[in-house]
Amino acid sequence: MENNVPSLYLFPSNLSESPIGEVLPAINIEIITEVKHFIVENIRTARRFLKKCNRDINIDELTFSVVDVNTDPAIIPAILQPMAQGHNMGIISEAGCPAVADPGALVVAEAHKRGYRVMPLVGPSSILLSLMGSGFNGQSFTFLGYLPIHASERTAALKQMHADIVRNRRTQIFIETPYRNNKMIADIIATLPATTRLCVATDLTGPGQRIITLTLSQWRKQQLNFDKIPAIFLLYT
Amino acid sequence: MENNVPSLYLFPSNLSESPIGEVLPAINIEIITEVKHFIVENIRTARRFLKKCNRDINIDELTFSVVDVNTDPAIIPAILQPMAQGHNMGIISEAGCPAVADPGALVVAEAHKRGYRVMPLVGPSSILLSLMGSGFNGQSFTFLGYLPIHASERTAALKQMHADIVRNRRTQIFIETPYRNNKMIADIIATLPATTRLCVATDLTGPGQRIITLTLSQWRKQQLNFDKIPAIFLLYT
Repeated sequence: MENNVPSLYLFPSNLSESPIGEVLPAINIEIITEVKHFIVENIRTARRFLKKCNRDINIDELTFSVVDVNTDPAIIPAILQPMAQGHNMGIISEAGCPAVADPGALVVAEAHKRGYRVMPLVGPSSILLSLMGSGFNGQSFTFLGYLPIHASERTAALKQMHADIVRNRRTQIFIETPYRNNKMIADIIATLPATTRLCVATDLTGPGQRIITLTLSQWRKQQLNFDKIPAIFLLYT
Repeated sequence: MENNVPSLYLFPSNLSESPIGEVLPAINIEIITEVKHFIVENIRTARRFLKKCNRDINIDELTFSVVDVNTDPAIIPAILQPMAQGHNMGIISEAGCPAVADPGALVVAEAHKRGYRVMPLVGPSSILLSLMGSGFNGQSFTFLGYLPIHASERTAALKQMHADIVRNRRTQIFIETPYRNNKMIADIIATLPATTRLCVATDLTGPGQRIITLTLSQWRKQQLNFDKIPAIFLLYT
């Protein structure tokens, strides 16, 4: 399976407790079964994911290198050592797509520098699924990650996002620490015009999936509770 | 299968000529086999896609409504008529994920207004796959669709994107009409600092997949030809 130019495979993982077959194409399982060298954020959850993909994988013959938020970028070339020896490697995300909201992007960048092949595979992304499900403009959008926590900076960020919606017809996508979700919704209602639409999506691909798109004046009346539920937020007019 | 609140399923389709099983989870095929009412951009390609998903689907018992760039938004409530009667419906994209770079978002917005359930399914997105494969920052990014064609506006747009990269560490993603790809690359090289990195991704998920990330000074030396090849472009420092 391995030729002159080794491949770095990017393996998405499931977002929710839903079965693998509901969120990953069959070929992902075929490929992951062949790869022997993995880069992961957490070895325990990566092993569990591999066993879910295919019970017959012999975990003991695999190697795992950890790349997480604390990883010194200087050690990444050493982590790609198996590729220098001609072996394929795989990055497994903790949830969703590698190199999107995790430190995998640094590994991918290093692989490009060294001329290796980079092979992203299809899988669930809360950013993309929520954008599809929101009904907002998908032809122009921005993902901002986390907004600032401090009140004045957060208000400024929300107003800037609203200006970008009005000026560029650009959907705004962002996340929040789950225990602050209700505060986030209250801050949005307090800051932006009542006709602005907010979409909140939770447990995407899971049994508790909810995708709710309402205007801020409707949100104010609904008083929905999202405390401690992982959610993604989208704004548009 | 149909209960009180009908569901609007968003069915991604394959980007390339690759087999369905390589890009779609098995559950997509199970669900699409149950849905009888579809909203599509082009009936011919949607019928072909359905037959690829499952040869046993009886196309003649299905209904198809067209929503494309020429659709008057005023007729969308009438298109959702089967849902008003309690039936599930499905949107099939021409390529990739519905409601992202196609007119499906208007249909989704109307479904939310009427309180229907919206169910986005996992599938290939050239935006997300190229972002994963680029090695650029996935924690903050913008998709801009097409850039302006006129020289001065395009130069301004490229400079604005570069400012957004520097100020917000935000990856910039955009597309171009394939016969203008080489001109786009030349314009980028002529406009932005030589240390800026450009990723060009072509035929994602297909046999001719290429994901090339280089600095602009490296691009200048390579003189690669992307004429008439569907591609997606990403910029970062």
